[in-house]
Formats: sequence, C-alpha cells, structure tokens
Amino acid sequence: MTSLPHISKAGPAGTTEGDPAVPTGPVDASRVPRFAGPATFARLPRLDQVTRYDVAVVGVPFDTGVSYRPGARFGPAHVRESSRLLRPYNPVLDVEPFAAMQVVDAGDIACSPFVIEEAITDIERGADALLGTDSRLLTIGGDHTIALPLLRSVARRYGPVAVVHFDAHLDTWDTYFGAAYTHGTPFRRASEEGLIDREASVHVGVRGPLYGPDDLTDDRRLGFTAVTCPDIAADGVAGAIERIHARIGDRPVYVSVDIDVLDPAHAPGTGTPEPGGLTSRELLAVLRSLRDLNIVSADVVEVAPAYDHAQLTGFAGAHVAYELLSAMASGGPARGRG
Amino acid sequence: MTSLPHISKAGPAGTTEGDPAVPTGPVDASRVPRFAGPATFARLPRLDQVTRYDVAVVGVPFDTGVSYRPGARFGPAHVRESSRLLRPYNPVLDVEPFAAMQVVDAGDIACSPFVIEEAITDIERGADALLGTDSRLLTIGGDHTIALPLLRSVARRYGPVAVVHFDAHLDTWDTYFGAAYTHGTPFRRASEEGLIDREASVHVGVRGPLYGPDDLTDDRRLGFTAVTCPDIAADGVAGAIERIHARIGDRPVYVSVDIDVLDPAHAPGTGTPEPGGLTSRELLAVLRSLRDLNIVSADVVEVAPAYDHAQLTGFAGAHVAYELLSAMASGGPARGRG
Amino acid sequence: MTSLPHISKAGPAGTTEGDPAVPTGPVDASRVPRFAGPATFARLPRLDQVTRYDVAVVGVPFDTGVSYRPGARFGPAHVRESSRLLRPYNPVLDVEPFAAMQVVDAGDIACSPFVIEEAITDIERGADALLGTDSRLLTIGGDHTIALPLLRSVARRYGPVAVVHFDAHLDTWDTYFGAAYTHGTPFRRASEEGLIDREASVHVGVRGPLYGPDDLTDDRRLGFTAVTCPDIAADGVAGAIERIHARIGDRPVYVSVDIDVLDPAHAPGTGTPEPGGLTSRELLAVLRSLRDLNIVSADVVEVAPAYDHAQLTGFAGAHVAYELLSAMASGGPARGRG
Amino acid sequence: MTSLPHISKAGPAGTTEGDPAVPTGPVDASRVPRFAGPATFARLPRLDQVTRYDVAVVGVPFDTGVSYRPGARFGPAHVRESSRLLRPYNPVLDVEPFAAMQVVDAGDIACSPFVIEEAITDIERGADALLGTDSRLLTIGGDHTIALPLLRSVARRYGPVAVVHFDAHLDTWDTYFGAAYTHGTPFRRASEEGLIDREASVHVGVRGPLYGPDDLTDDRRLGFTAVTCPDIAADGVAGAIERIHARIGDRPVYVSVDIDVLDPAHAPGTGTPEPGGLTSRELLAVLRSLRDLNIVSADVVEVAPAYDHAQLTGFAGAHVAYELLSAMASGGPARGRG
Amino acid sequence: MTSLPHISKAGPAGTTEGDPAVPTGPVDASRVPRFAGPATFARLPRLDQVTRYDVAVVGVPFDTGVSYRPGARFGPAHVRESSRLLRPYNPVLDVEPFAAMQVVDAGDIACSPFVIEEAITDIERGADALLGTDSRLLTIGGDHTIALPLLRSVARRYGPVAVVHFDAHLDTWDTYFGAAYTHGTPFRRASEEGLIDREASVHVGVRGPLYGPDDLTDDRRLGFTAVTCPDIAADGVAGAIERIHARIGDRPVYVSVDIDVLDPAHAPGTGTPEPGGLTSRELLAVLRSLRDLNIVSADVVEVAPAYDHAQLTGFAGAHVAYELLSAMASGGPARGRG
Amino acid sequence: MTSLPHISKAGPAGTTEGDPAVPTGPVDASRVPRFAGPATFARLPRLDQVTRYDVAVVGVPFDTGVSYRPGARFGPAHVRESSRLLRPYNPVLDVEPFAAMQVVDAGDIACSPFVIEEAITDIERGADALLGTDSRLLTIGGDHTIALPLLRSVARRYGPVAVVHFDAHLDTWDTYFGAAYTHGTPFRRASEEGLIDREASVHVGVRGPLYGPDDLTDDRRLGFTAVTCPDIAADGVAGAIERIHARIGDRPVYVSVDIDVLDPAHAPGTGTPEPGGLTSRELLAVLRSLRDLNIVSADVVEVAPAYDHAQLTGFAGAHVAYELLSAMASGGPARGRG
Repeated sequence: MTSLPHISKAGPAGTTEGDPAVPTGPVDASRVPRFAGPATFARLPRLDQVTRYDVAVVGVPFDTGVSYRPGARFGPAHVRESSRLLRPYNPVLDVEPFAAMQVVDAGDIACSPFVIEEAITDIERGADALLGTDSRLLTIGGDHTIALPLLRSVARRYGPVAVVHFDAHLDTWDTYFGAAYTHGTPFRRASEEGLIDREASVHVGVRGPLYGPDDLTDDRRLGFTAVTCPDIAADGVAGAIERIHARIGDRPVYVSVDIDVLDPAHAPGTGTPEPGGLTSRELLAVLRSLRDLNIVSADVVEVAPAYDHAQLTGFAGAHVAYELLSAMASGGPARGRG
Repeated sequence: MTSLPHISKAGPAGTTEGDPAVPTGPVDASRVPRFAGPATFARLPRLDQVTRYDVAVVGVPFDTGVSYRPGARFGPAHVRESSRLLRPYNPVLDVEPFAAMQVVDAGDIACSPFVIEEAITDIERGADALLGTDSRLLTIGGDHTIALPLLRSVARRYGPVAVVHFDAHLDTWDTYFGAAYTHGTPFRRASEEGLIDREASVHVGVRGPLYGPDDLTDDRRLGFTAVTCPDIAADGVAGAIERIHARIGDRPVYVSVDIDVLDPAHAPGTGTPEPGGLTSRELLAVLRSLRDLNIVSADVVEVAPAYDHAQLTGFAGAHVAYELLSAMASGGPARGRG
Repeated sequence: MTSLPHISKAGPAGTTEGDPAVPTGPVDASRVPRFAGPATFARLPRLDQVTRYDVAVVGVPFDTGVSYRPGARFGPAHVRESSRLLRPYNPVLDVEPFAAMQVVDAGDIACSPFVIEEAITDIERGADALLGTDSRLLTIGGDHTIALPLLRSVARRYGPVAVVHFDAHLDTWDTYFGAAYTHGTPFRRASEEGLIDREASVHVGVRGPLYGPDDLTDDRRLGFTAVTCPDIAADGVAGAIERIHARIGDRPVYVSVDIDVLDPAHAPGTGTPEPGGLTSRELLAVLRSLRDLNIVSADVVEVAPAYDHAQLTGFAGAHVAYELLSAMASGGPARGRG
Repeated sequence: MTSLPHISKAGPAGTTEGDPAVPTGPVDASRVPRFAGPATFARLPRLDQVTRYDVAVVGVPFDTGVSYRPGARFGPAHVRESSRLLRPYNPVLDVEPFAAMQVVDAGDIACSPFVIEEAITDIERGADALLGTDSRLLTIGGDHTIALPLLRSVARRYGPVAVVHFDAHLDTWDTYFGAAYTHGTPFRRASEEGLIDREASVHVGVRGPLYGPDDLTDDRRLGFTAVTCPDIAADGVAGAIERIHARIGDRPVYVSVDIDVLDPAHAPGTGTPEPGGLTSRELLAVLRSLRDLNIVSADVVEVAPAYDHAQLTGFAGAHVAYELLSAMASGGPARGRG
Repeated sequence: MTSLPHISKAGPAGTTEGDPAVPTGPVDASRVPRFAGPATFARLPRLDQVTRYDVAVVGVPFDTGVSYRPGARFGPAHVRESSRLLRPYNPVLDVEPFAAMQVVDAGDIACSPFVIEEAITDIERGADALLGTDSRLLTIGGDHTIALPLLRSVARRYGPVAVVHFDAHLDTWDTYFGAAYTHGTPFRRASEEGLIDREASVHVGVRGPLYGPDDLTDDRRLGFTAVTCPDIAADGVAGAIERIHARIGDRPVYVSVDIDVLDPAHAPGTGTPEPGGLTSRELLAVLRSLRDLNIVSADVVEVAPAYDHAQLTGFAGAHVAYELLSAMASGGPARGRG
Repeated sequence: MTSLPHISKAGPAGTTEGDPAVPTGPVDASRVPRFAGPATFARLPRLDQVTRYDVAVVGVPFDTGVSYRPGARFGPAHVRESSRLLRPYNPVLDVEPFAAMQVVDAGDIACSPFVIEEAITDIERGADALLGTDSRLLTIGGDHTIALPLLRSVARRYGPVAVVHFDAHLDTWDTYFGAAYTHGTPFRRASEEGLIDREASVHVGVRGPLYGPDDLTDDRRLGFTAVTCPDIAADGVAGAIERIHARIGDRPVYVSVDIDVLDPAHAPGTGTPEPGGLTSRELLAVLRSLRDLNIVSADVVEVAPAYDHAQLTGFAGAHVAYELLSAMASGGPARGRG
C-alpha cells in the first residue's frame, strides 16, 4: 500500500530487483489494480524514488497564455490519470521504454497563473534543473506558451534544435493585445531568439483558416515548412513521415505535440479545436516513425479536461507521451549536433 | 465595446477603411477577444450595419419536423457561437471570403414551432425577402424540413436547380403519420413541385439501413443519384468529387448539408445519427471542391446542441458554412442557367 | 427577422409604441420564439437601438484573475443565452423592470486576457463610459477581479459605497504568487483605495475553510461584517435580510454577487465551488429584499459555463440579474449620499 | 430470463402466488438484478400479463407543444429506466402500493409528433381505452399539452374535477403564434371546456416572472388559486398542505405534476427551468399528504432527458409517480362526486 | 398502444400478415414513433410473441469481470434503446434480416453481480436454453467475461469453433489477482477448454501496449493470429477481410465484437479505451464481409453507457448487431463442420 | 517541484518548521497553485514523508459489492482530486485540523476487484496495519461493503463500537443472489459479528421505499435507530443532532458516511441515488456537531465519479472528510470505553 510494488524489468525472470542499473518500472498491475494508487505518469516511480533517470516526465500546469477556451492548467493531472492503462511493452516498435530507460515522474513545475513572464521564467528554471547532460524531458502542458522556456532550456544544451511541431495551428503569430508571449506565438519567439534550426523545422497537421496569406510567408521565414492535413489526406501518413525525415535528418530535434493536431472527434478537450484533423491512429503512426530521430526532449500540450469526455483527450495525450518515450528509447540517448 | 472595431480587408495594408465598395469584415480579433461581443456568424456585421450584401447568413430555428431527437431549433445560436474562431483567410482555396464578398448575419427567420405548414410559409417569405438578384443565402437550420421553402424561394429565381445533398439519409420519403412536410421528405416534395433538376441532383454520404429496396427506386425517379459512404470508402474523396462534378456541370446548384453526413464521432449533436459516416476532413475536402460550381444558395442543417459535446458539432457546422462561403467566393456570383 | 418586434410596456393596452418616453422592452415572445434572434440580455434592445438608458447591462469576459477553474470569460455569453426565458413582470415585487426603466444591453467591454493590470484599466474606462449621472450598471462577469475597476468607477461618482457582497469566500485576501489583483483580492484593494464604506459593508453566504483566524480579523478591519451560511441556516433568510438592512441603511450601495454564493448543486458552473451554500430560492429572496436599498450599480460574476450543466448556473445568473434590476426599478433612481 | 419471476405480495408469508385476487408485483430483485430485464415502470407487469388492473401507468411520448427546450418525447422511456430502483414498501405512508392495487405498465400511447391536434385526439382515445370505472391512470409525459386530453377523458367519467397542479408556471396562458393547444395553455383550455372545478383548483410551486399582472387575474378567473414558492418558503410544507386540503376537500381530484416544479438543481432535465423551486424532499412530502384526497388520475410531465444528468430528473419523476401511486393506494379507489 | 402494430415483411405488398411462416418484424415506424413503445432490440417482438425463432437477441447485463471502468452491466439496455432507429433493409448486403429470419428479443439472462463463477454458470445455462439446433444467438454484453460461457454453449453444439474476435486487446491473458475468469482472459480459457479451433481464430483491430513480448507468443500458441490496427492502416479494410477469410474458410465461426475495437472517438462508452482504433465505417465494412462465413453465433460486448455521449457507443453497438444479423441472414442457417 | 513546500502550522509566525512535534501540513497554496502537484488528500504529506501520524487518510478503491451503478472504485482518486481547494482553518469549529493533528495520506489499500471475500480480507489487513493505538483512520471508498472489514479492525482495538451511519439506505439487508457480503449488508454482518454496539447505533438520513415493514424490524433488532429525512424535515438539523448525541453519549463511535445521504442534487455521482435527501449544508452541520463525540475512525463511501458532474460529489466527499477530521481534532484523541 504505502510501498507499491514497482516492476523491475531485466528479463523474463525479473530477478534483479534492487539492482541500481536496472530501471524501476511501473507499479505491478497484477498486484495493484490500475485504478488504485497515486497517478504518477504510467504509474512510474517519483523522482525521489530513484537515484538517476534518463527521462523526466514533468507537468507544467499553466494556461494563462490561452486565447480561447482555458483549462489546460488541469492538463498534467488529467493526462496522468489517463495514463493508468499504459502497459510496458510497445509491440509496434518492439521496445519496453520503461525497461530501456529509467523514466520518472518529476511532478509539476509550480508557476504563477497571473503573470505570464514570471511563469515563463519559472518554467525555464524548472526545466534547467531537470534537464541534464544525459537526461531528457517529456513535458505535459499546460498551454503552448510553455514551449518557449522549454526550448530555451534545450537550446542552452544543444544549440538551435530542429522542431517537429504537431499542431492545427502555426503558433508563429506575433502579438495579441500587445502581448508577445502567448500560446499562439512560442515558435516565432523561439525563432527570433535563435533557439530553433531554421533549416529544419516542420509543422505537421496544420489546417483551418488563417489571418491572411502573410501568415504563411512569415512562417517560412521563421524556419518552418508545413505538412498540412490536406497534404496528409493526399499523400497518407507515409508521405508525411518521408517529408519529416527529409527535413530533420540527424539533427537534434525537439518534438512538440499540441493535442489539437488531432481532429476534435479524437481530442475534444482542448482550447481551440479545428475540424479536419488527424485521427489518433495517424498521429500515433507518425510519432512511431520518429524512433529514428535524435530526440532531445519533447512535450504534449493543450489538453483541457473541462472540455474532455470520457477521458478521450486524456488517453490521447497519454498515448502520445508513451509513443514519444518509446521513440526516445528506440533511438537511444540524445546526441548533440554531429 | 458598443462600436466593435470591424476590419475591412482590401489588401495587405488595409488602408481602405470607410470605402463602401470594400466589404466590412469580422470584428478584429487582435483588439476584441474572440470570446467577447455578440455571436454573429464569424463575428461579421449585422444586416443593418451594411448597405448591401452578397451573401446573407440567416438562421432558421425550427425543429418541429424532426422524427427522432429534437433540438435543432437551437442550431443557429449554437453554430454562431461556434463560429467565433473562424479566421478570414482560407489557405486551401487561397481566398478571403469576407473580403471577396460582403457577407452579413441577417439574424433568424421567426416561425411558429407549433404548426409546420405555417412555419414553412414564414420561412419561404423570409427567404424571399433576403434573396435578391445578386445576393445569395447561407442558411443555418433548424431541421431539414426547411430545405423545401428555401428551394421554393431559390427556384423562383433560378428555375429548377441541381441539388448537392450531403446527408446520411435520402430525405425523399413520402409521409409519416400522414404528414407530408417533415425533415424526412423535403426533397421528394421539392421534386414533386418541380423545384429541382431531376437530371442533376445527387446525395453524398448516404448510408445505413433503409425501409426497403423501393426507397432507392423512388429516389432515383425523383432525380437523385447517390454517392454513398461505402462508395467513398472505396473510391476516396477524389472519386466522390469526380462523380459530383460530372453530375452537376455548370447548372445552378443548391447545396444542402445535413450535419449527420458526418460520422457521429464528428457530429454527435444531431437528431438521427448513423455510424459509418464521413470524417470532417473528408467533408471539408468535398466542400472545397465545390468552388468550381455555380452555387446559388446553400444550407447547413440538423445541428442539435443538446446532444453536442464541447461544441464538436457546432464547430463542424461553422466550418461547413465557412467552406461553403469560400466556395461561393471562389466561384464568383451565382449565375442563372446558361 | 432583421427588425425584431420589440414591445413597449406602458399600460395594459400598450398603445404608446413609438413614444420616446416609454422604454423599449424585450422582443415580443408571442411573435418571435424565445430561442430565436440574438441573445441580448433578456432580449432587450442594444445600446445603439435606444436614445437613452437607465441601466446598462454590460459583459466583462475576463477570467485571468482566477486561482482554480478558469472559464468565466464565457460567462457573459452564457448568462445572456440563459436569459431568453425571462418574462417582463416580477409578481413578487409587483414591478415591470423593463417598463419602469430603460434597460439596454451594452455589449461586452473588450479587455486583454493576458495582462491583468491592462484589463483592469480597460474595464475601468469602459465602466466610466457607460456609468452616467442618471444611469447605472449591471455587469455580468467574468471573474471577481472585475469588481475593483467597477468600484473605482462607481466611487468616482458616489464616493465610498456600501458593498453587499454575496459570495462563498471573503475575497479580501492579500496576494497570491505576489499578484495583488486577482479574483481573491478585489475587496481588500477596494477598501485600501477608499472605494468602500468601512462602516457599512457586508458579506452574505460566506462559508467553508479559511487560511486561518487572521482572515476574519483582516476582513473586519477592511470594513466587512459577515452573514455566513451557518447564520442563515440558524436564523433563516429573514434574519439575513434584517442584518443586511441594519448594516446598509440608506447609503449608496453596490451589490456584488459571486454565483458561488449558491450551493454547487444550484451553481455547478463556477470556479471554486464550496458545498453548504444557499439555494437559489434563498438567494432570490434576499435579493428581492434589496428593493428598499439605494443601489448604485451591481454585478453578477464567476459563471463558468464549461462546468455548467443544462444551463443551471446560467439560469441562476440570469435570475440574479433580473432580481437586481427589479430591485433597482422598485427602489427608484440611485441617489448620492444624503 | 424470458419469464421473469414476479413477486406477489399478500402478507408476510407470500403464500398466495397464483391467486388471481392478489396483485402481481414487480420482478423479484433478489433473483433478477435491478439493472436487468425490460424497463416497465417499477419492473411491474405489462398490461397483457394481468387480467385486470386498478391503475395503468401509461406513457405519452409527445413534446410538440413545447415552447423552449424540446425532448420530453423521451420522458416515458427515461422515467421507466429510472424507476428500476423503486422498492415495494412505502414506509412513510406504511403502504405497499403494488400489493394494495394491481398496477400495470400499459406501454405508450402512440401519437403524431407533427400535428398537435391529431396527437391530442389520439391521446384522448388512448386514455378513454384505459380509464375504466374502477381503474385510474398514472400518465408519464411528454409535455404538458397532454393534460388537456387526459382531463377530457377524466371529466367524461367524473364531471369537472378539482386539479392540483404542481408547476413553476401557471399554464393558463392563451395562445402562442396563434396556437391554442400548447404546453402553456392546457388548463385554460380545460377550464374553458368545463373540465375542471373552478372552485377547487390550485397551483403549487408557481414562481418566476410573468408576462404581466393580468396573468394572475386571468388565472383566478379560470378557477385557480396559487400556493407559490415564496408562500412555501414562508409557511413551510405544512402551510402548503393545509391550503391544498382546504381547497380540495373531498372532491374528485386530478393531480398534474410538471417536474419543473422542482428547482433546476433537482430537475435539470426539463424544458423551461425556473430557479427558486421546491426541493425533491418538499415535493415528495406534499405528494404524500395527498393520501387523504380522492385522486381520480394523475400525471407527471416535462421530463426531458437530453438535459438530465445522472438520471437526476428521471429518478425524481419515478419517485413522484411512486408517491402518487402510494397516495392512490392509501386513499382507496376513486369516488365520484358525493 | 398495448398491441403495437408489427410489420411482416414478405414481399413488396406485405399481404401475408398472419401467415406463421412469415417472420414478425419490427413495430411499424409510420404508425408508432420510433421513440415510443418498449425498447426491444430494433423494436422486434419478444420471445413470447412468436412461436419460433431463428436468432435470439439476448442481453447479459454483467460486468464484474472488468479490470478498469465498470458499467457494461447497463450495456444491454443501452444498446436496445439505441437500436430504435434501425430500419429493416440493408442496402449494402441487399437483405432484409428481419424478413429473412425470425429474429426475437429474448430479454436478459439474469446472473449474479457478486460471484463471477456463479454468473458464468447462469450465463451458460441461459445460452443453452436459447441455442437450438436451428437457432442462433446474438448476445449483447456485458463485459467480455461472458464470451467463455457462450463459447461453451456453442461448442457443445458445433465442436470447437473458429473465432473472429474484434477487440483492441488480445483477451488471452492468464490471471489477475489470481482470478482466472475475467474480461481479459476468456479466449485463453476457451482455448484451454478446447472450445475454439486453434487453426482458425483471429483477432481483428488489436493495438496498444502489451505487458511484454510473451503476450504475443502465448496468443499464437492459443490459436490466434492478429490483424492489427497498424495492419489495417497499411493494407486497408480489404486486406483485413482477405486475411480473415483465408483464416476462417468454411468453418463454423463465432464472432465476438468488443466495442473497444473502435477508436475511442467512435466508442467512448467502454471500459478500457485504446486510441488508434477502427472507425465505425471500417468496422461495419469488415462485418459486412462476414456474410460469406458460416456464423454460428455472435456477441457484441463492453458497451458501458456511463461513459457514452449522445448514445454514440450505443448506436455503434446496435449497428454492429444489425450487421451481424444481416450477415447471418445473408449467409443462411448455421452449419456444422463440413 | 520535487520537494513541495509543506506548511508547518505552530502559530502565527510558523517558525517551527523542522520541529518533529509540529505536524506537517498541506502544500503552501501561495507558492504552489492548488491545481499543481500530486493530489494527496488536501495536499497533505504522504505516509512516507512523516515519522508519525494521528490520522491516516486511506483510499479503498473497491466497488464489486455494488448492486446498481458501479464506479466507486474511482472514488478515492476523485475525492482526493476534489480536495485540492480545502484550506487549513475551520472557522465554525475554530480548529486547524492539520495543525492539531498529524494527518497523512496513506495511499490506497490494494484489493481484488474480482472476489469480494478476498478483498474484504485485504482491506481488513490494510486497516490493521494503519490503525495504531494512537492513530485513527479516515477511509475513502469504495462502496459500502468496505465498512465491514474496517469495523472488524476498529472493534479489534476498541470492542463493539457505536456507529453513526449517514445513508439513504439501511444497509442491514441480508443477502442478494445468495451473497452475504455486499454494499447493502455491512451493518447486518457487523452486528452479527458483534462489532457494533447494539444499544447505541443510529442511521441518519434514511429515506425512500423499502422491501417491506420487516426491514425496519430487523434493523432495530440489529441495534439501530433511525433519524430519517422526514424526521429531519420536521425537527430540523438541531433535532437530528440531539437524537444522535442522546444515542451515542461518550461511547467510542465509528462514523460512516455514504455520500448518498445527500440528495441527488448534491451528490449525483453515486450508485443508488434516492431523492428527498439532505442538503450539503445540513450534512456538514450535523457532522460538525460530532466534535463532542469520541470518534475512533470514520469513512466516506460510494462516490462514483462516472456519474458526477463538475466534481459536485467529489467536493461533497472532500468536505465530509474535512469535517470529520475537524471533529476528530476538536474532540481530541480517540478513547476506549470509559
């Protein structure tokens, strides 16, 4: 009860419990029902229960940068609660992410809901504290504003990174009401600050009306190309994967998944839904293809549970995170620029 | 606040504010948050705020013709509320519909919820008042009963029109409980009244069980061919588009979109959902292809918000309307029969 | 349709239509169904449809000051949509508020969702523009942060006002995360700024755990006494009314209603619900008793529709506004300090 | 399975199974789970499973008379589904209604959803067929329009009846959009047709704004007095009971319960909710007091499940019906005018 | 009303009403609205209303074998309520299943919610009583535990059967908490008991993480091959159909459909949703292809209405059942092993 | 982030942080937003974060004993998530429960969802491990079955205890389907096993239909008297409090709160709702009166989140727990029989 039986995966017999070199896995579902016990991500150990980690899953409950439906501040708790069903073996990638790497739940980064700039600073500091030379972050938002401080922290270690950005929207707008830091602007700011590789960034799943043709011109100038939903409808998931890989190559890459890249049918619980999106099957397939990439960190953002139903969006967020972790495990440790 | 800042789109500089030849567009989202101000469609001006219009968006809050789940009387308010996120530029069609045409929100046509025939008369009159020689209607229902008076009004101007009818159902049934005018019968009545072109009408997205094989025989006799969901599954969106265009050609065409053409996953908020439908991505793609057609007016009906979740169906309805407007803007003004 | 038939109430015969001295009332429900037409508050005319007004109903779609569940930015639209059923005669107070006064819907005050201080300035300016020597405000929030700029505007005209504050919480806390202006602090700031009468302010419906005993000491020092929910349970609504009247007397009074004064069963759609609250019947009864007071303006805040069900909280908010307007109509025009 | 085990209650030993004089009761919950088997009301036998009955529970799935939120057509199915938990003994009245009387579920009266007048005729015929000299009806609506044909049928047998009408609204309005027969007018029509006793009818639970003072004058002229919600707040349930009994005496009485007499917190699933209503505890207490009356038939109407949550309104409707049946069982068979 | 008008479908004229050789079909929807009357499956007759039947639709309201979200005990009632819209003619298969076969609603099998083993025995007995030499079962669950007793009953008649198992999960796990009989284990138990044909069973729609690579090894040993969701994404529905047919051939086949084979967007109302699933269009297409198979019985399980929205999952379950019945009708009576 | 700032309350200055004699309180809400960080009950420390405790809050996620709507297995997580808003000072009782006692969150007791008897054994063992000579339990269910093993553990220490049982139902039924241990029977079993004091136990809030008059006779024989909802309606909360205190006196008392004691309007999220219940204000008032009692342990059960809305029932459960803890803190340590 108070000492939940975590799994140590070291082979069929599981005989190496206690061996510090063997990652501590999720709580054993054959002894503790999945609906019992604390909702750490995938029922993994907390940060203080391990001596080291390869990937820290960390929440950023912040949504003051939202322009329409707020509520993503409850996203981290919701995605964790929705991650209780995740099992340890990924059969498509043939990998056990929690055995291949020590993954931990590092809790939430506390930040002010009232002043965006203060929150950005807090998030940046929190990320810096968790992101080590041999450790990566998988962040659960929170609105997309948080990508900026996360990219600052990542770029401090790796230099400008390629970004694979899954989203219905470009998020390279400039200002709203004079505000520079919102959930519609992180990638413009990041590009301006030199955090991203302008030769190698890509949006996936973009769709819906824009403010004007300039949006696209600006966006290209800031370093992005777009694999739109109509592109995917035309060329299939395979086409999208090919274009992403061609664009990214071996560069250090940051993956940012706005859950609204999914069609609203698959992710109702988000702030600015846009019909005509990806199915969860398509998104998971594209994410699995990232196994070959050099992922230095990643996030999944914009899950707003007040608009969710039956945890649909929560489950989607949890599976996105799981596939990102699986890709990280498959691809091996993050590497700097070659 | 009381004089919301509208934008006039006339080019990159937007220097022509005040020029009566330049359409008045939506309220400026960089100065008035999208969640603020009255919910006219797409935050466009009201009818009384402009001197002329090309397309009137008008609501018909009527659902007494419904045979199963009622509630589409709240459809117009729901679709408008769900249209606050629409932005002015359609990148797929490369058109700014609110700059290319003066689109206005003409409010709702008031009609009796108690007597179907009276309501039909009121709707017909309301449509006549709005539909001018150089203006078109985009009607938001309401249940599908309203297509009949709308077609009467349209046919009065253009003669029998081709109909592209998106729906899970044929809506060419005869009577229920002896009632001739219901949401299951508008196209039979319209065909009988000579309002539609029997050589050139087409259902898109039909699926699900029927009453019997005669339903299809009757339907063909009344002037329709059907691009069914199994057809679309087999031949793709491209196949559907090809068949629609082959059938319609250059004829004046009325487009009627029952939101239940979408799969219930994409449009739960409707009265008679039918599994196995279109995704919103497929529907929007087909609608965009109508840009080449000679659209004389259009409707989107059967949005029943009591069954909606997180505005899923409302957003779908708003985007359907947006693509119809974009197609109208792309195709130029409606033309009579060549 | 585009010119909805308004009724002018001036007696049983209603013969004075067109007389500018007779207020323009709501749209006639026997000719336009209540579910049709734009959702101005109670289907009243817009500000631009009248030449003068006694009370302006104005929305403030702002919720960035929220400490827990956000979403009150959608409150104004939701309360308006839920006000469609309001009829013109209040039988308990025997008053027709929309005939006794010209009440208008002044739309929303646009303000930034990103920077609290900017928004407060915008709200203050908006209130100043609407609040005249012989006109009052009935504001629909938005979160409780907005009470501060509203009180600033009111105090500029009337000097320090008594406040009758309906709420589960004191809202006289000091700072959160260093932020001075949030939805938990408006009445402390207002008291510090000399906007409220420290001899004559009162909380009604307070309940639930506090941070510590000091909360109450501070609160008294800032000018408030509290009629708590346990008090009301013990002494009934009559006891509460007596204490409020004894405290307020003939002073100019501002009434601020946080919808969470209601029990969560009666108002689920709010940000920080607190069990053990008032029933809607109790609240409406206390509000009706305010007819004898000298109300200079009022607000109803913290309706967060994402958490509402079946418009329960929306209807409650609309009826609170209606009773406040009825009390204003019964009590006659606002008067300055005697 | 296909022959569900019914219980016959005739005393502590229950030894009289098979005795035709002993009523057939609900399916035995200790052998068939309450969530299993068909949802007849309270799991009682169908009409065709018994040879005679004292009370027929019958549904009228009709809602075309609704002026705001439709959906009460699904009311009968919802109330039945929500009646699965009803147990056979009423401890407050010390009566076993299903043992004291043969109660059956007579199914639904089929009627047109498209033409109100036709439906009224069908309902009247259906009621006539079920209402015998020694049998009574407990009708589950449907909207309140149905009270008119039910009263016609009842008055044909008993002459003008006293009506105890539980409702937030008077339902004695005249016409809407020229329509005489809607859910806002049944008691005016019934009074005009001489179906109700103008000396002895009473509204209970009325509240909320009216169209004007005339509404009340008209209402009194049509034969009603009103025990309003403010009256009940002032005088308690006991005061209401006393006034009802003083008004009704020994007259044959028809009880009509619009579920919106409950506060929206207790009955969200209805078409025109009105804050400030009764609690379910108050309503059930008043209904129990009717045990002394000479109830000739009764109804519960306006349950609209699309707006319900967690079957709250369904359970309320089922318990209202149960208390009405208990009162009928306690009071003995209906009697004509003495 | 109490004798609802059933239709007998025997040809275009329908002249054979009364002929015992002609199946009794659903209640006539042109005389009884679809929302009226008892919710037998597809409004078909009850078992006691016919003299013989070809297929019995039977509910098993049991969910004690569930490992995560319970509630499938309400599945049978929910699927029936959601089957009211089913019409009698299947245009894709060109078959009228209720005219080609006598289909009846046999009610629910009552079983204990407290002791799994007892329930399994009760279900097995109930199935034995309904499953005759020339009659088949279409069972509505309930959780997947029930497949075991159903397979026992089927195998008693046909010997080991091929199983086509639609599911997100393998359901061939061994034990949880030492329990052998749960919703995760029916096919392992069935294989161990020799009830299924180990050469010819197939999972369709499997996806998501597993416990480990051994899960797949075990599964193959127990007789299954898997057509996974990634397979279907790659090879299309046509590829899946081909593999299923190649595996099954002419063998007697039991079809078991766990509704979670659908993507959560299409079936939120289930216990262990797994993103990345089938669309309802894909599932219905695969089910239609089973018309060529020798189906001896079938089930649809795991519909948990507490998590459903707008009956989405209920409609899906009803259509799955309808297509299974259509396939049975197309394929002719079940045949033993050739 | 990973070392959340917990409050140590030892006086106004809070200077004693680190002193082991001073209880560790909740996470500081002025530094970590209430929506951030893990959802331990009231954001209190975990068991492993303290060296000793006075009260352990422990969850029992078990609902296999439920006879109608299941789902209380998710109750512990839901109540914890809904306890984030609890503040540390109870102004009505003038007590700071988390400063007066060391309260910890002990996590969940893991138990089988498949075999009731095994689960009961596991729960009993878990309770034994946590319940010390100077420590008490506050258990969050889970269904009411769990009261039996909890009472076994308590009685082992204190002998037969008085029980104050808040519930709509008696829960002293005998068996269902032959099962002795379900959520309808714990207090009969407890009485039979000699765990409860038959002179001093009391139900509060009982209401609704029963199986027969014998239910009450049995219940009295088993040691209970009942303060019913009609009693409370008649005599008020004060009357209930008086009767409870008269019955209990100074005996060691176990308090068991089934959330369905609340009216469904106040607690929709439960398995067997019963209209006519307590308001949350009434329940909290009665619970506060227990401060004078010698409470040895307590539980709150039957919160089923799948049926909750906007966390209404979760908040109710959290506040019930908070008042129970406040009463424990006010009354001082549990004492044995005098």
